[in-house]
Amino acid sequence: MSFGKVRPGDHAIVAEGFISRGAWSLIEDKFSDFAKAKLTDVVRFTLDEVLPAAELYEAQISKDPATRWKQVPPVIEELKNKAKAKGLWNLFLSKKHYPKHGTPLTNLEYAVMAEITGRGGHFGSEAFNCSAPDTGNMEVLAKYGNEEQQKKWLMPLLNGEIRSAFAMTERFIASSDATNIRTDIRQEGNEIVINGHKWWISGAGDPRCKLHILMGKSDAQNANQHRQQSIVLIPADTPGIKVVRPMQVFGYDDAPEGHCEVIYENVRVPLANLVKGWGAGFEIIQGRLGPGRIHHCMRSIGAAEAALDRMLTRVTDTRKRTFGKALYEHGTIVADIARSRMQIDQARLLVLSAASMIDKSDAKGAMRDIGMSKVVVPTAALEVIDRAMQAHGAEGISQDTPLAAAYAGLRTLRYADGPDEVHIQQIGKQELRRAEALWERQNRITGESEKKLKAAGIRSHL
Amino acid sequence: MSFGKVRPGDHAIVAEGFISRGAWSLIEDKFSDFAKAKLTDVVRFTLDEVLPAAELYEAQISKDPATRWKQVPPVIEELKNKAKAKGLWNLFLSKKHYPKHGTPLTNLEYAVMAEITGRGGHFGSEAFNCSAPDTGNMEVLAKYGNEEQQKKWLMPLLNGEIRSAFAMTERFIASSDATNIRTDIRQEGNEIVINGHKWWISGAGDPRCKLHILMGKSDAQNANQHRQQSIVLIPADTPGIKVVRPMQVFGYDDAPEGHCEVIYENVRVPLANLVKGWGAGFEIIQGRLGPGRIHHCMRSIGAAEAALDRMLTRVTDTRKRTFGKALYEHGTIVADIARSRMQIDQARLLVLSAASMIDKSDAKGAMRDIGMSKVVVPTAALEVIDRAMQAHGAEGISQDTPLAAAYAGLRTLRYADGPDEVHIQQIGKQELRRAEALWERQNRITGESEKKLKAAGIRSHL
Amino acid sequence: MSFGKVRPGDHAIVAEGFISRGAWSLIEDKFSDFAKAKLTDVVRFTLDEVLPAAELYEAQISKDPATRWKQVPPVIEELKNKAKAKGLWNLFLSKKHYPKHGTPLTNLEYAVMAEITGRGGHFGSEAFNCSAPDTGNMEVLAKYGNEEQQKKWLMPLLNGEIRSAFAMTERFIASSDATNIRTDIRQEGNEIVINGHKWWISGAGDPRCKLHILMGKSDAQNANQHRQQSIVLIPADTPGIKVVRPMQVFGYDDAPEGHCEVIYENVRVPLANLVKGWGAGFEIIQGRLGPGRIHHCMRSIGAAEAALDRMLTRVTDTRKRTFGKALYEHGTIVADIARSRMQIDQARLLVLSAASMIDKSDAKGAMRDIGMSKVVVPTAALEVIDRAMQAHGAEGISQDTPLAAAYAGLRTLRYADGPDEVHIQQIGKQELRRAEALWERQNRITGESEKKLKAAGIRSHL
Amino acid sequence: MSFGKVRPGDHAIVAEGFISRGAWSLIEDKFSDFAKAKLTDVVRFTLDEVLPAAELYEAQISKDPATRWKQVPPVIEELKNKAKAKGLWNLFLSKKHYPKHGTPLTNLEYAVMAEITGRGGHFGSEAFNCSAPDTGNMEVLAKYGNEEQQKKWLMPLLNGEIRSAFAMTERFIASSDATNIRTDIRQEGNEIVINGHKWWISGAGDPRCKLHILMGKSDAQNANQHRQQSIVLIPADTPGIKVVRPMQVFGYDDAPEGHCEVIYENVRVPLANLVKGWGAGFEIIQGRLGPGRIHHCMRSIGAAEAALDRMLTRVTDTRKRTFGKALYEHGTIVADIARSRMQIDQARLLVLSAASMIDKSDAKGAMRDIGMSKVVVPTAALEVIDRAMQAHGAEGISQDTPLAAAYAGLRTLRYADGPDEVHIQQIGKQELRRAEALWERQNRITGESEKKLKAAGIRSHL
Repeated sequence: MSFGKVRPGDHAIVAEGFISRGAWSLIEDKFSDFAKAKLTDVVRFTLDEVLPAAELYEAQISKDPATRWKQVPPVIEELKNKAKAKGLWNLFLSKKHYPKHGTPLTNLEYAVMAEITGRGGHFGSEAFNCSAPDTGNMEVLAKYGNEEQQKKWLMPLLNGEIRSAFAMTERFIASSDATNIRTDIRQEGNEIVINGHKWWISGAGDPRCKLHILMGKSDAQNANQHRQQSIVLIPADTPGIKVVRPMQVFGYDDAPEGHCEVIYENVRVPLANLVKGWGAGFEIIQGRLGPGRIHHCMRSIGAAEAALDRMLTRVTDTRKRTFGKALYEHGTIVADIARSRMQIDQARLLVLSAASMIDKSDAKGAMRDIGMSKVVVPTAALEVIDRAMQAHGAEGISQDTPLAAAYAGLRTLRYADGPDEVHIQQIGKQELRRAEALWERQNRITGESEKKLKAAGIRSHL
Repeated sequence: MSFGKVRPGDHAIVAEGFISRGAWSLIEDKFSDFAKAKLTDVVRFTLDEVLPAAELYEAQISKDPATRWKQVPPVIEELKNKAKAKGLWNLFLSKKHYPKHGTPLTNLEYAVMAEITGRGGHFGSEAFNCSAPDTGNMEVLAKYGNEEQQKKWLMPLLNGEIRSAFAMTERFIASSDATNIRTDIRQEGNEIVINGHKWWISGAGDPRCKLHILMGKSDAQNANQHRQQSIVLIPADTPGIKVVRPMQVFGYDDAPEGHCEVIYENVRVPLANLVKGWGAGFEIIQGRLGPGRIHHCMRSIGAAEAALDRMLTRVTDTRKRTFGKALYEHGTIVADIARSRMQIDQARLLVLSAASMIDKSDAKGAMRDIGMSKVVVPTAALEVIDRAMQAHGAEGISQDTPLAAAYAGLRTLRYADGPDEVHIQQIGKQELRRAEALWERQNRITGESEKKLKAAGIRSHL
Repeated sequence: MSFGKVRPGDHAIVAEGFISRGAWSLIEDKFSDFAKAKLTDVVRFTLDEVLPAAELYEAQISKDPATRWKQVPPVIEELKNKAKAKGLWNLFLSKKHYPKHGTPLTNLEYAVMAEITGRGGHFGSEAFNCSAPDTGNMEVLAKYGNEEQQKKWLMPLLNGEIRSAFAMTERFIASSDATNIRTDIRQEGNEIVINGHKWWISGAGDPRCKLHILMGKSDAQNANQHRQQSIVLIPADTPGIKVVRPMQVFGYDDAPEGHCEVIYENVRVPLANLVKGWGAGFEIIQGRLGPGRIHHCMRSIGAAEAALDRMLTRVTDTRKRTFGKALYEHGTIVADIARSRMQIDQARLLVLSAASMIDKSDAKGAMRDIGMSKVVVPTAALEVIDRAMQAHGAEGISQDTPLAAAYAGLRTLRYADGPDEVHIQQIGKQELRRAEALWERQNRITGESEKKLKAAGIRSHL
Repeated sequence: MSFGKVRPGDHAIVAEGFISRGAWSLIEDKFSDFAKAKLTDVVRFTLDEVLPAAELYEAQISKDPATRWKQVPPVIEELKNKAKAKGLWNLFLSKKHYPKHGTPLTNLEYAVMAEITGRGGHFGSEAFNCSAPDTGNMEVLAKYGNEEQQKKWLMPLLNGEIRSAFAMTERFIASSDATNIRTDIRQEGNEIVINGHKWWISGAGDPRCKLHILMGKSDAQNANQHRQQSIVLIPADTPGIKVVRPMQVFGYDDAPEGHCEVIYENVRVPLANLVKGWGAGFEIIQGRLGPGRIHHCMRSIGAAEAALDRMLTRVTDTRKRTFGKALYEHGTIVADIARSRMQIDQARLLVLSAASMIDKSDAKGAMRDIGMSKVVVPTAALEVIDRAMQAHGAEGISQDTPLAAAYAGLRTLRYADGPDEVHIQQIGKQELRRAEALWERQNRITGESEKKLKAAGIRSHL
């Protein structure tokens, strides 16, 4: 049995029905042989190793509050070892930008792989050591960390031995605007002292988390609003760090990683823990945004595809007939499936065009396309998942399918890293920059048109 | 002044802001040098010649019912001559499929050009001799016509000397299902006699229309429902053809071409006017569908882009301030612009992936992607145009902008050639074909998962 | 045959299926016996006289540009005479507010009748002498006109002997903001001189139009922006009035009434033609807005109901089977019908609640509900009609059903009298005025809550 | 400070901004003095007692799995005592239908109260002893229970001393179609033996739950599909009842009540525990549906209003400025608020019209309006809450606001008690029943029209 007609020479991603032939026809010739082979391996590893371990992973998370945040499901570490052994490791880190530690994959190539790993949710990408917030943190350390910092923190992260947190979001203020940040960073002798109140610090609950990369204000009076911030490396066991509680996303606490409220009270680290230099905070987080967003988007598309697959099996489940009809015999269900397919295919192409654009120029040149992806994908994915939930009835929102948890996780992407509303305004304003040139063009055309009308003795009403 | 940062070496289509850099980065390397040059010429000709002539064309259409259907605006024939002289002619006809008369352009390459010509509406593509229904008719004649038929009808059509109509849709029945066709075609001696009642026959009102390509039933009792139909060539001046009236689209009659109600009463043509053979009708119209739909879609995207451009100039028109604000200062207007941009960019990529797929395999292999384009594009384009109309207020729905006419024209695409509802069901059903393989995969994964749970001594609730 | 179960004693509006029993159960006891009887008559007259005359009315409009604006279809005058004879006349004019000329109907009572007349489109309400812009103009004259003005203009309007135009909208500016108005009104001796450039002046093309009620600026420097405007009565045959052209709505010119571009060049009228006094213009147009909008909304709902009725007959038309199924057997069609029903029923209730509110207090107290109706109804009606068009295929957008013309007419309501965007902002801002009281309430509740938590020895995280 | 202009004599529900003046103007005269007074008390009790206790209730739920399902937050019992003392108790039970135990309130009157209690979520209605599934269970016992059953189960439920569960939904099948039910009920001597596998049994986890009202099949072979089912009363401590696990709704387990998977294995009860008689199951559950759905809908509207209130305070929170603007200064936020307001007001009116209809006839006569409410309200409420979440950013989906939990709870209403899709088809099909009468009417009108055209010598194209 197969997914439509498989033809000899079809790549695994097509044969498994993971991408439309049309989309693949646009990008295939942009893939190196190395990338094609890696992609095959990612597909196989996800299907053969990752997905069959997902339920066990859930089962191994302790339900007892006393141990819930102190244990890590053993199966994830086993998977990581297998993936590392197969060379399916740190694929997110581009050799072009990080020649020392990176993998020779373009953004476009990795983007397609990220979608596959996204089929297994957060767990699916962690198996490849490609999960947030570690990915962005490794990029920061690889790009801005000095040799000592890299040795101490980057290497164990690259090895998957430790995990990390990124402490930016603050409670009580709108910290998506970095100029609002209030956490105080100041030098005292050879030490840096940190005081602040953060929350939604992903990974801070994990017993493997050994590092907080924290952003705060070191020079709040600096006239240049983008030089007020600095970034500091804080070992997770430093005195003064108080993990107050895990925040919940809908009813999920996402143990053992969690998204924690964390208070930093007179936390002291050596001066050597400053990243890049005083005032470099804003610059550093800007670098985190572009490709990372693309990866997030592609993983979300993977989650949406997985939900659609699940919807297809559900509606063809012959035990679920109502009023004499199987679900797939209802025209509205069929239409819902079609809508999901059309939304996913369009969203994927948009993200791939952004990834391709990054490869051609750079993240900055692709900001518009990245911004559009950031807006389009979460909403599309949420709608796809919501339809899948609806087709499942009560089961769809329960712990018996991954749908509700996926929905909850993706829902956060509509405000994380800037809410939809802000990005939509930016996209619109970017369009508006074309207005002046359009006026020129329109005036030129109207001028020509009026000449023609005059020559023909016709009076225009315009 | 320019459309964002133009970089040295940018293709005209990028420099003019006609496509996103991301989309262009995906397809640029699939364009031949020939195609790139032609594309530049199409862009320039559209901007320099076609668009400045649009208002004159409208003005030259007679408002007097006595002459409205007897005159053709002279400017269109002048434009056609210019375009022909520059080799911007019959670009729709692919050399690969029509080696004798075609142009060496792939579907993807021509698709991008079709979008540009679509910025000028129907008039915009007629200037290049690339407008429906002539394009499909020329394809039919080039593929299925015999030498005599080609000499008599195809050559003058290719030369832009005559125009033609395609008579398929019938009154009183649902003729989108070709098996419902009732027009009777029968042989009497050396003649074919046609009796039927058609409507929405585009172009039948045009004084240049010299040919009706008609589909009817020649063998209504044939057990094979797809061998009942035949196609016949009927000179437009044959006795018995009665053009009853032009149908209106919203309030437009689209003179001088029109979409006419036509009664065929004992219309007689020589046997030689049969195309391909008895019973070949269904096969012939199937061949018309694939690439033609792609072109329709791309022209619609061109119309949507033109509407968005117009919206951008409108909302930055400083004379139109209300309550102290220019329109572009309203957040909801900016959001509407952003939404239009995101819809257009996604829809274009979807159509381009379908076009690329046709180039890689054939129209049949791309049916799914074509079907999705057919559904996605008209709705997206209508929404974009509707937002542009709304930003224009009363002017937007009047004769003073092309928006309302574009809306009306595009609205027909939601049912022409099969209503959205039918295509959506087909897309959904195609997805459902994956269900069996998905069940297999899911069962395999569940089986593996259960083994793992068992080995770990855990009882699954699933 | 009937519309569901008719029960003895059911009012005609229920028996004819024109309103849901639920909605009727909410308002029935607010109807006087007089109103119930009138409502029955309006239902009967619409079904028995108006609707059967609609096609004849269309046919009687001249297609010849030479006479198109000089003739009035005789059938409408015959209908008006019949309606007047039956006392179905000027029902819009409330006796409560206009004791001299009005009918003893509340807003709520008339609103329900307006819906019924709206089933026949503009023609449907003209038959009852209840069509715009005459209705608003009669209200202006009845409220603000002096005896002389009423005798000369109001009486023939009330008698349906003449028609009138309301000249407010101006070309080249955003005149929905009345402070932008540029038409100049100035006194010269005993005369008033008017200069200005208006467009979209409904009814100005009609040969029966004898009066332009014009708004312009008589005191552009007045510090009070709402005292700059005045309103003047101008006989339609006054020298200097130049009807430039009819504007089109989509392709419709709505002859013989039209929506015309009109230039006023040194138009002179006696000082006695000033309405109410200098500077009263803004106050006067404010009074036009409230109940008039409600009537517009109800007529739009009538148009939507008629479209849904038509959709129901179309999808059950047994001649229109495709692929072996009648249209009504498609689940998505059934769902579209249900959505239309739900939208209409909700929109109607909203408008009725606004009408009831006007009756309880006044238009000002009901501004919020009127504003919501103004936004909700046109969009709902357009969606309902669009679905009906789609179910009709090509016929639905042609001259063979009233659907496309209804769509075009209703589309204007999304910007006329203030675009949706402006009204939506007003509704939102009105909600925001509740914020301060909500903060107070929330603080009170939180304070109480904290006391309780403290007493229980629990520390809140909020 | 107040909610808009409060006028002397305004009812509390208007003064507190809980309903629009327009809606109130439609229904006020249908309220008895008793109902008006009760409504005031419900408003005050909710604001003064229920809402300030909500956080304490949450805090009093044990987080320890060992005790989570064994304790009930004391505060709810305190609240219940207070409410009972004030006569705010069992308001849901209509005296008209349940003369012995009911309260003299119409459906319309109670519906408005239900909305208020819904502002506090499930907790908010439990305080008044008006929460599901007890309400429906009490109705079943009051209507169908014999004296003994009422004494044993109904009285303690009415007193709020015990709670109950309704065991209908089954695992592995689509039990929303009651004919699919598989739980086996059979008589053995003087006993009834029950075997089945249920899930989503709300309240079954609660230590106060003393009764399962279970529906199963007692006569699976009965030719009448609606006589196969019976309903049995099962004490919660009967041997053989196995509460397997609480199901989760988006990560929430809703302790201490829970929605549990329950296996009934050879559960035995006396024959006296049969309700009404063998085969009466289907009839009994039908009776549960009508008014209960209305109450659900109104509570959902209350939840939506509470979310909108919260959105209003959030967007005016001056600490949450981004990029120099407070949230309420963004046009798109204002538009979102307006959309929420318009959706809520329309949905409420729809439900009120259904409630009024029940009062005029009965639930059966109001089935159409109830069905529409069932579809419209959850979707509207979810959209309103989603916008409120979005305005809150991360906080909105966390445990720090009730929004995410409300969203999760309301999401279940889109499939519970029949999925949206099924209800939409029913509404559409009910509309289609009008088609025959519409054809008759249309034919009559067309016939008249043709006569008129003929008389005028005009040929119709229709």
